[in-house]
Amino acid sequence: MKATRNQYLLDADDVPTHWYNILADVDIPTADVRRARPAAAEQGNGVSAPNIPLSMYRSSVGKDRFVEIPHEVREQYQRWRPTPLVRAYALERALDTPAHIYYKYEGTNGAGSHKLNSALAQVYFYKKAGAKELTTGTGAGQWGTALAMAAQAFDLDCTAFMVRCSFDQKPYRRVMMELNGARVVPSPSPITKAGLGVLESTPDSSGSLAIANAEALEHARSLECGRFAVGSGENHVLLHQTVIGEEALRQLELAGEFPDVVIAAMGAGSNFAGLAFPFHREKLRTGAGTRLVAVEPEACPKLTRGRYAWDYNDFSGTTPMTKMYTLGHTFVPPGMHAGGLRYHGSAPLVSALYDSGAIEAVAYGQNTVFEAGALFARAEKLIPAPESAHAVRAAVDEAMRARAERRATVILFNVSGHGLLDLSAYDQYLAGGLSDHAVPAEQIAASLAALPGQSHAGAMS
Amino acid sequence: MKATRNQYLLDADDVPTHWYNILADVDIPTADVRRARPAAAEQGNGVSAPNIPLSMYRSSVGKDRFVEIPHEVREQYQRWRPTPLVRAYALERALDTPAHIYYKYEGTNGAGSHKLNSALAQVYFYKKAGAKELTTGTGAGQWGTALAMAAQAFDLDCTAFMVRCSFDQKPYRRVMMELNGARVVPSPSPITKAGLGVLESTPDSSGSLAIANAEALEHARSLECGRFAVGSGENHVLLHQTVIGEEALRQLELAGEFPDVVIAAMGAGSNFAGLAFPFHREKLRTGAGTRLVAVEPEACPKLTRGRYAWDYNDFSGTTPMTKMYTLGHTFVPPGMHAGGLRYHGSAPLVSALYDSGAIEAVAYGQNTVFEAGALFARAEKLIPAPESAHAVRAAVDEAMRARAERRATVILFNVSGHGLLDLSAYDQYLAGGLSDHAVPAEQIAASLAALPGQSHAGAMS
Repeated sequence: MKATRNQYLLDADDVPTHWYNILADVDIPTADVRRARPAAAEQGNGVSAPNIPLSMYRSSVGKDRFVEIPHEVREQYQRWRPTPLVRAYALERALDTPAHIYYKYEGTNGAGSHKLNSALAQVYFYKKAGAKELTTGTGAGQWGTALAMAAQAFDLDCTAFMVRCSFDQKPYRRVMMELNGARVVPSPSPITKAGLGVLESTPDSSGSLAIANAEALEHARSLECGRFAVGSGENHVLLHQTVIGEEALRQLELAGEFPDVVIAAMGAGSNFAGLAFPFHREKLRTGAGTRLVAVEPEACPKLTRGRYAWDYNDFSGTTPMTKMYTLGHTFVPPGMHAGGLRYHGSAPLVSALYDSGAIEAVAYGQNTVFEAGALFARAEKLIPAPESAHAVRAAVDEAMRARAERRATVILFNVSGHGLLDLSAYDQYLAGGLSDHAVPAEQIAASLAALPGQSHAGAMS
Repeated sequence: MKATRNQYLLDADDVPTHWYNILADVDIPTADVRRARPAAAEQGNGVSAPNIPLSMYRSSVGKDRFVEIPHEVREQYQRWRPTPLVRAYALERALDTPAHIYYKYEGTNGAGSHKLNSALAQVYFYKKAGAKELTTGTGAGQWGTALAMAAQAFDLDCTAFMVRCSFDQKPYRRVMMELNGARVVPSPSPITKAGLGVLESTPDSSGSLAIANAEALEHARSLECGRFAVGSGENHVLLHQTVIGEEALRQLELAGEFPDVVIAAMGAGSNFAGLAFPFHREKLRTGAGTRLVAVEPEACPKLTRGRYAWDYNDFSGTTPMTKMYTLGHTFVPPGMHAGGLRYHGSAPLVSALYDSGAIEAVAYGQNTVFEAGALFARAEKLIPAPESAHAVRAAVDEAMRARAERRATVILFNVSGHGLLDLSAYDQYLAGGLSDHAVPAEQIAASLAALPGQSHAGAMS
């Protein structure tokens, strides 16, 4: 039912009962998934991959269209879901566009982003599989915050290895993790061999996500009942996020609309998939011409400038390989504010869809992204996270096109989180101090040449 | 209707159509109001008080029980109101209490606090009275952010004089103001005589709210159509905030409950009045024994340790006098994190009710307040502003008493805003670095002795 003038709100009873598994509807060769499969729990420790519970794993590689959300997880979802779908009337007026602009807002929970959708599900399955502590690596801390909150909700311990420079310079999410009882360790740390190794050679290392993840993996293996959890990319994470799109479908139905274009920011892919996959299913069912657009930063343009190839998920090349759109695991994106979009690769499921032409991709530079984010903030009184501002940019461009073409295009995008802990980035934007970080072609050519199975000569020359 | 498992949500149509004017129901001598009355608009400039529009002034000193909310203001409210009323099941479990704990949450709007309720109303009335620009002084920026956002919504200019040390050290709300098109001037500034005077004697002054307000007043007077707006204390501000309590009444009705105790943090009084006044009316109507509790910091205990006397609103003693509970306008509270509660006085309406015994007051130290805030954050996944954490502390104590007495006490309190921009304060609390700032009796005695009309000998001796 409609609960405010511009919001389409659903009841707690309307929280989806099932996640949507896109493997039921698209023909993605199993090998593309299987070789990416993390070593399952029963293989024991000592492997260079997370051990994920079989129950969670199976549901994300099978062909069942709908996977039931466990009662305990759905009950947690109901603490803040369904999230609002908002008709952006003020933005429409600001743009003087005939387009109907809708956004789904995932920042209303305590962690402030969509990450909590998967964190709660993962913690539930890990706990059921016997885990007592979860570990993870985290940069600015969006995922770490969600995991800490979820672990606290299910009474598990949580240790987050936080990249040292974020730990020192952006302490806000560290505090949120600590408020939720998590242990936050600045990485590199002396409590793991991986960390010690780095500290010995570089005592003042500012750390990296690759190092933090390596520490988190090692620490999990050192614990009797510890597991390493990841926040995006894997099939099961994409599956959990489909609650976003399922709700949006239902809410747009209340509004009497179906989108012409669905837009979401693209890091490793769970945010994009979460909104877009259910609409892909409906497209297939109804033959609608809806476009699905993934938005990435020009600083890390894996879909628009990368290659569909087998690659590692981490810088050090210790994970299993994944068939995905990638810039090469040795690609180091320039420093930028949308930390959640700095991943060199992309989820295998999103990659396969992109390869098949089922989805589109577009890349934007930082300044134009923050310009759209600031415009949105002024109009809608909601400051989007820098990651989400990428989707805003694309939505604004679609709305301007609708104006030029005098068409009442229906636009749906996802504000995956709020930007209240990213105000220093907006400050830099307002002061004119942001770089667009266009990546030179040579840098991409070099990291692509270093893909596994490629001649390494190219990268070396 | 109930929209989630633990929230009582209303429709946009249920946004109150009227504010509640408590003067219709309590016998507060008009003189107590009149001498506090700011010089009205028609008196022209050159007086040491804000000029408030007659339409806004009249409705807040009359005897009409209900004052219609202008259509344009109500339409703005409907962008985020009604705000949720939440049954704090998780907190109840954490405390193992039979109490039913409800909180009203005012942090869902873009400004992050209840301040927007009055900012929108004031901007509307000032604009109708011909104002083109509003000015204000702001410390950490909660009120300034709300005013900037409201001015932007009604297309007025806004200049906020922000205390220099906050401007330099806590830039987040400055960025939010700037994102909403406001000009933010660090105070003391060279653009006013008041600021210049301070800068001449103290070039590196870190500023104060008194100086910032003096600058904002002077700047407003220098503009042809400029007005100075205040965020609390005045009758009209309390009036605007009653939308909080009116909604809460209706929501508790949906829950089938009436509170045994109503709790809110007390700065100058608009937050407390906004929640409590409508419940006071219902108490009078039904004879219910509901207690109304204002919570103040031990660092600024005007109700619990101050005096009911005529006093100035500002440090420099240039405003008209107000009959109020006060620690004396020369009282300088110790630095603390709940900046919104650092005012030496209190709203005349709240003061009169307190004097009559109709409401209670309690004071807490910083550590116990943050302890409750952290407990609430863990349980409810919502970090309360330090101001709001004062109400949480009192609610937790009531719930513990209910447990000891084995009574299903119904507790209602107000989370006036979120604490996402106050995480450094929680960080200090977790690190054990907070002071409780108990105020020595001598300090209070000295500032009370310096009240206008008192012998000044006491303060000097």
